[in-house]
Amino acid sequence: VRPRSSCPVNFVLETVGDRWSLLIIRDIVRYEKHTCGEFLNSDEKISANILADRLSRLVQAGILRKTPNPSDKRKDIYKLAQKGVDLCSMMLGMILWGVRYGYHIDKYYTAILPLVKKDKQGNVRSRMEEISDLAGP
Amino acid sequence: VRPRSSCPVNFVLETVGDRWSLLIIRDIVRYEKHTCGEFLNSDEKISANILADRLSRLVQAGILRKTPNPSDKRKDIYKLAQKGVDLCSMMLGMILWGVRYGYHIDKYYTAILPLVKKDKQGNVRSRMEEISDLAGP
Repeated sequence: VRPRSSCPVNFVLETVGDRWSLLIIRDIVRYEKHTCGEFLNSDEKISANILADRLSRLVQAGILRKTPNPSDKRKDIYKLAQKGVDLCSMMLGMILWGVRYGYHIDKYYTAILPLVKKDKQGNVRSRMEEISDLAGP
Repeated sequence: VRPRSSCPVNFVLETVGDRWSLLIIRDIVRYEKHTCGEFLNSDEKISANILADRLSRLVQAGILRKTPNPSDKRKDIYKLAQKGVDLCSMMLGMILWGVRYGYHIDKYYTAILPLVKKDKQGNVRSRMEEISDLAGP
């Protein structure tokens, strides 16, 4: 599919800009969920057919990797590929805005934020340096 | 409308997590566009009815401010409220990921990235400090 434009913001929106994809990534990062059954069980109650569609798109986009579950071949395991790990800086930005302006904020998030901050600050900074190199002087 | 969950990632997705809202914010920040006519003219070709819906939602959410155009009363002017300005850290994260993984990247973005970086790095850092204070020791 040809992107609607050459804008990187649009590229992200076309790749993960729906109301569900980033919740799957959150489930993996925050809750260490890895199977369809676990994703279906989250508070936002994704439907089975939307979940199947989004998992397949995310694998197709190289954001998730799908591997067979060694203990039960019917249950595939989904993990983040590097391209998915690299979404975490952006998601940190989302969390910060969500915590600032959201009316219903999960206390657990507030509690883990210092850790997220500690871990991701380096991530954000190194990404900025990479991009700065890419962009030239 | 009651949010689907108390997760801040979900809160952001429910507020601006569609394929168009952040493009309007990009148009304002990057291209200094402020009127419907200008938004309709962007590369992604938003339709007039989706644009009207998203502008109304973004004003309702306190992300945009709508003011009458002094020179032409039929053309309202849309600007970012503080809540919208505060989305820029997250959008910087999107740009960085989009530039890293996008196939079609606008050269202009690459050229302005060092400036964006310079401006937004402080923004990201101060937001992190605020949240860290909020989260407690």
